Amino acid sequence: MPSSKSLGEFELIQRFFTHPLRADSPVRLGVGDDCALLQPQPNSELAISSDMLVEGRHFLSTTDPVRLGHKALAVNLSDLAACGAKPIGLTLALALPRADEAWLAGFSQGLLRLAQAHGCELIGGDTTQGPLNICITVFGEIPLKDGRSQALLRSGARPGDDVYVSGTLGDARLALEVFRGTVQVPGPVFEAARTRLEQPTPRVALGQALRGVASAACDISDGLSGDLGHILQSSGVGATLDARQAIQLLGVQRYPVNARGVFDSQRALSLVLNGGDDYELVFTAPPQAAAAVAAAAQASATPVLKIGGIDAAPGLRLWDGDAAPQTLNATSFDHFK
Amino acid sequence: MPSSKSLGEFELIQRFFTHPLRADSPVRLGVGDDCALLQPQPNSELAISSDMLVEGRHFLSTTDPVRLGHKALAVNLSDLAACGAKPIGLTLALALPRADEAWLAGFSQGLLRLAQAHGCELIGGDTTQGPLNICITVFGEIPLKDGRSQALLRSGARPGDDVYVSGTLGDARLALEVFRGTVQVPGPVFEAARTRLEQPTPRVALGQALRGVASAACDISDGLSGDLGHILQSSGVGATLDARQAIQLLGVQRYPVNARGVFDSQRALSLVLNGGDDYELVFTAPPQAAAAVAAAAQASATPVLKIGGIDAAPGLRLWDGDAAPQTLNATSFDHFK
Repeated sequence: MPSSKSLGEFELIQRFFTHPLRADSPVRLGVGDDCALLQPQPNSELAISSDMLVEGRHFLSTTDPVRLGHKALAVNLSDLAACGAKPIGLTLALALPRADEAWLAGFSQGLLRLAQAHGCELIGGDTTQGPLNICITVFGEIPLKDGRSQALLRSGARPGDDVYVSGTLGDARLALEVFRGTVQVPGPVFEAARTRLEQPTPRVALGQALRGVASAACDISDGLSGDLGHILQSSGVGATLDARQAIQLLGVQRYPVNARGVFDSQRALSLVLNGGDDYELVFTAPPQAAAAVAAAAQASATPVLKIGGIDAAPGLRLWDGDAAPQTLNATSFDHFK
Repeated sequence: MPSSKSLGEFELIQRFFTHPLRADSPVRLGVGDDCALLQPQPNSELAISSDMLVEGRHFLSTTDPVRLGHKALAVNLSDLAACGAKPIGLTLALALPRADEAWLAGFSQGLLRLAQAHGCELIGGDTTQGPLNICITVFGEIPLKDGRSQALLRSGARPGDDVYVSGTLGDARLALEVFRGTVQVPGPVFEAARTRLEQPTPRVALGQALRGVASAACDISDGLSGDLGHILQSSGVGATLDARQAIQLLGVQRYPVNARGVFDSQRALSLVLNGGDDYELVFTAPPQAAAAVAAAAQASATPVLKIGGIDAAPGLRLWDGDAAPQTLNATSFDHFK
């Protein structure tokens, strides 16, 4: 309908979202025509992912727009990372209640800064008036090797494989629970956790370094237990996690101000297993690839921790080193619910 | 955040939006992993477009979900058509106030029926809870010719070129004005116009047939004058339209029940020039390509009408055959405003 342009769509795109293309980009035509044009490298696959973020559901209305721009792209880059793809470009569709210039300036700054850091070009999209909604679709390249796909899938885990997780978990959920008032932590702990919630770090370099090394991978957006669950289901296998290892993933215990005492071990484990919004990678690799995993972690400057192993028996189990492994279901350890 | 899955996202996708891939598809992996995987044809470009539709702005809340599913994809396929691309796939991101099964069944039916008619696979996306919002990103292929792009762009129009429009214009706007109560027409006329508003026909076959024939093209989503204006601006040229030809584009006069008498010629021309939501193509071609344009129209079974020509002088002019051409601005002929 003609009224959809009343925002000043064209000026808005020109002012906040148009930038020159890099000379070496596979993008042949960016913003400004009916379509953008890509010319992917020969002998490569294109990885594509799309995420929609809604105010009040995926972010708080008070979120700094710079951080929101970062996060909206980060959650998409995290999907490319999980497939081992190198980012190329993105489209941005944006529904805005009104054309708030300060908000747009901040949002585009946060988004474009992260995009440029990853060589990911904004190639097109749409803007319209409506309840705040951010939909980004990202494109990445994965070179074929001897004509075969090197994409990391959820379906490649095999019994005997080790289970690894990158970085730290639980910080984002901790910040969310502070916002919700269910837990209190010292100010510096909250600020550190809040940064992880609002400006997650997509593990793009690690994902690419794991091509040919990891047998399966998934990004952790809904929580470790759920996202490892996707790998287990797609691969037709189960896993047993070592609780003593897994608990070391808790981000908060590494902060300068130690807040570990705030949590009993059940709550700590709950944050690790069911935190959500972490945007780390969970992946599997055969034991003989352990050195290659370590090399990938080092090459990408990303910490990686082995927390368990893949079993033939379906299901996800947690073992504390003493008692028999305990079977987890999706919420059995969510002590914030 | 973990709560984003409370819709039963995985069941919803499985039930309404998962379908087997065609054997000859360039899609290597569809719905169900972190990313979808495409392997485009060698020596081709990928055309990408993204559109966001918001309830109350782009469609009425009362719209039949089958028609809405059709339209949400049609407006995106129309962008591929305008570039001369062959559809390959789409991602669908959907924010829904609630998981209404009847609505989802209708919406997915309308969308997938049109997708299948164009060999366009649903390869991924996202669902979440929120105010109704539909964001589709489409992918199409354009073969390179002798290593060069054949994409139809907005920027290729040259003085002396003819200006053509496909199909008919104004029907969608007419239906909208009936909904708004600003005009009354006989029932069968309204139903025919409403079908054009709610189930537009993307000119996908025509767009592909115009590769190597048209010098510039754009789809008509905001109205002929505005979208031809994009071509003029991108190409650095102007155009003069023959009002006597242009008025023949009015769809309503071709309906079985003749409603032409409802409109004076000013209103009729206004519908043609500023209708919007038409999803026809406006394109240019040099006079020596006239036979090739006719052949493309015939091969794609799509009516095409020559309505004017490109001038070196900037601006859009309307000529009625008698008086001097009248310069148009974006709203000068919008007699519904």
